[in-house]
Amino acid sequence: MALYVQKFGGTSVGSVERIKAVAEKVKGFRDQGHEIVVVVSAMSGETNRLIGLANEVSDEPHPREVDMLVSTGEQVTISLLAMALHAIGVPATSYTGAQVGIRTDSAHTRARIQQIDTDELHQDLGAGRVVVVAGFQGVDADGNITTLGRGGSDTTAVALAAALKADECQIYTDVDGVYTTDPRVCSRARRLETITVEEMLELASLGSKVLQIRSVEFAGKYNVPLRVLSSFEDGPGTLIVAEEEPLSSHMEEPLISGIAFNVNEAKLTVLNTPDIPGVASKILGPIADANIEVDMIIQNVAPVGDRTDFTFTVAKSDYKQTYRLLEQKVIPELGGEIKGDDQIAKVSLVGVGMRSHAGVANRMFQVLGNEGINIRMVSTSEIKISVVIDEKFMELAVRALHTAFGLDREDVNQEG
Amino acid sequence: MALYVQKFGGTSVGSVERIKAVAEKVKGFRDQGHEIVVVVSAMSGETNRLIGLANEVSDEPHPREVDMLVSTGEQVTISLLAMALHAIGVPATSYTGAQVGIRTDSAHTRARIQQIDTDELHQDLGAGRVVVVAGFQGVDADGNITTLGRGGSDTTAVALAAALKADECQIYTDVDGVYTTDPRVCSRARRLETITVEEMLELASLGSKVLQIRSVEFAGKYNVPLRVLSSFEDGPGTLIVAEEEPLSSHMEEPLISGIAFNVNEAKLTVLNTPDIPGVASKILGPIADANIEVDMIIQNVAPVGDRTDFTFTVAKSDYKQTYRLLEQKVIPELGGEIKGDDQIAKVSLVGVGMRSHAGVANRMFQVLGNEGINIRMVSTSEIKISVVIDEKFMELAVRALHTAFGLDREDVNQEG
Repeated sequence: MALYVQKFGGTSVGSVERIKAVAEKVKGFRDQGHEIVVVVSAMSGETNRLIGLANEVSDEPHPREVDMLVSTGEQVTISLLAMALHAIGVPATSYTGAQVGIRTDSAHTRARIQQIDTDELHQDLGAGRVVVVAGFQGVDADGNITTLGRGGSDTTAVALAAALKADECQIYTDVDGVYTTDPRVCSRARRLETITVEEMLELASLGSKVLQIRSVEFAGKYNVPLRVLSSFEDGPGTLIVAEEEPLSSHMEEPLISGIAFNVNEAKLTVLNTPDIPGVASKILGPIADANIEVDMIIQNVAPVGDRTDFTFTVAKSDYKQTYRLLEQKVIPELGGEIKGDDQIAKVSLVGVGMRSHAGVANRMFQVLGNEGINIRMVSTSEIKISVVIDEKFMELAVRALHTAFGLDREDVNQEG
Repeated sequence: MALYVQKFGGTSVGSVERIKAVAEKVKGFRDQGHEIVVVVSAMSGETNRLIGLANEVSDEPHPREVDMLVSTGEQVTISLLAMALHAIGVPATSYTGAQVGIRTDSAHTRARIQQIDTDELHQDLGAGRVVVVAGFQGVDADGNITTLGRGGSDTTAVALAAALKADECQIYTDVDGVYTTDPRVCSRARRLETITVEEMLELASLGSKVLQIRSVEFAGKYNVPLRVLSSFEDGPGTLIVAEEEPLSSHMEEPLISGIAFNVNEAKLTVLNTPDIPGVASKILGPIADANIEVDMIIQNVAPVGDRTDFTFTVAKSDYKQTYRLLEQKVIPELGGEIKGDDQIAKVSLVGVGMRSHAGVANRMFQVLGNEGINIRMVSTSEIKISVVIDEKFMELAVRALHTAFGLDREDVNQEG
């Protein structure tokens, strides 16, 4: 007998039929003798509908009232799921975030969980009841309803699992686990049995958006076993574990766990700019002031005397504005010239195996070189290597690296 | 400067445009220096949509979960209205029933208010804020969300007005006040400046459904001045007052205040039944057991020796079942025969003026007699006389009585 916190997202509860299917799934676990806490999101589309109403009412809707409004989305789902459970003979009680005592700070629309009261939950579970909790929401010290920001239902689930010392936090989604890369780009992508929290964080931030990044951090911090599974098919999904945990299969895992990619960035270089202290902040200052986020930053070795090239990437949507800022505020002061490219892709290898194995970067450059792919930028971290290449080579690069690093599914013909 | 509790129903907040219009109206009162508490219902159609979802999930949705579900309807409205007020520069705070401390018993879907905490409300009002409260909902001692039953937003408004000792509770609706009778039946119907609580109760229970009857009782009990006004047009509406209140104009008011009518009843008579103690309960017992509500009851003087006729009315929809019950359970035991009629109308004169003036009934019978309308049943109370007539004469009877008792609008040609 185990205690599971199970989270079902918007698609999984997107209709009355699906809510009934979730109830049946929960009943199955309960019939096996497990204690179940279910966390649900708003029915798919509902949060957007509500935010649409808010935007019709006001250009800048008051954040406290936005939380009051959108929190109704999950409240509808919890009540319907509790009804569906009752209807098939499973005693269940629904709770809003405020009712279950998910205490947060007062940062409306992006609140952080501070504390969870579990007394009542344990009482319900002890009495054989399934507890259904509204994800994404909480209450501040003054009794105001808060929300955790988009995707916050995952965080609710992990936080509840931590507070309840659950055996596992299971996140049900519309995919059946975490893959070595996006199966739409590489048909040989393989579901991972396990992945470490760190790897998951690198993959999530790079675009494999299965789980909300905050919930993964949370799981790592509180050592909550986190599993991603499909709402619609049976299967073991992917277990996300703290690295410390001994995994019998881990030694045989390949050097890298997954390949992430991102085609939504653009690259800008200030060529031939003075190589003096503070030049980086002189270039990036005006960009930060405009609230533009910079991702990769590389300053090359000075090619000519005391001049250097400074390269960075921004979101593609910020490319034009960034170019103008450099033109108007940076070049007049520093000199040099601008070179920009918005047809780039970032491809990243992620894996804790890199730590103990040299030569991953070199092997990566070889593979890309063999395919005739030129590398425009490189950046590395302890468990990740990212390269920027021309956008048109992205699929080719991902597939070649996927095969070269032993990630391909065994049941797929590698020539296929 | 006054403290007003203003309630806007589902039609008045049925769209974003209407919510904005309510915000403007509220702003107008606040700009005059008044303190305003606004109570709102769910946007029209929303409660039915939610109940529809519940019925899709379960044939018998769990009452606690029904309250959890439908209470989201008002929560959406309060947040949108608070946003709309902010957007036009009016500081406002929304509260759910639970947040504002509307404590009820635990009778889900039909809870009764027990207590309201007003500390926080007074604080907000004192700070110049408009307070927006979700109607129809509260919270029980265990923190469960409850609802007051359909139309309960009126009750919320009156209860808040009583707790806050408000100067007036204003119920904004889609009509501009209480009329002497239904203007669709009698074009000469006139809006009443004032009406007493007792009269309002008689009119409401008889079919002039402007206000929820519970809220009127509540207003009477706690001596809350209650005003019915239009959401869409300016105007003084109708003030509902306790009778004790001295009204300068009251002496000149006509004997009766309004004419109610109801065509949704049917009449059943048990003819020639024994005139013995307990016969009434022998006839009505099986009907009460079937949960059929009986309205008027009349036992005529025995026309033949120790036999009597016993007549009563039920809802038209219960007519056939009631007839069968009499046939199967009453006649075999008591003897006699059944006569039924489901083509009847009940027409009622209501007015506190009746108390001090004899002859109202007689005048009523004369007027109906002059029009050739036969009276099938009569029943009287202290401030009401009801007659049952053939349904086809209903409009004629209402119009003739309206004119005869001086209720016609002065600006309408009485021959028109």
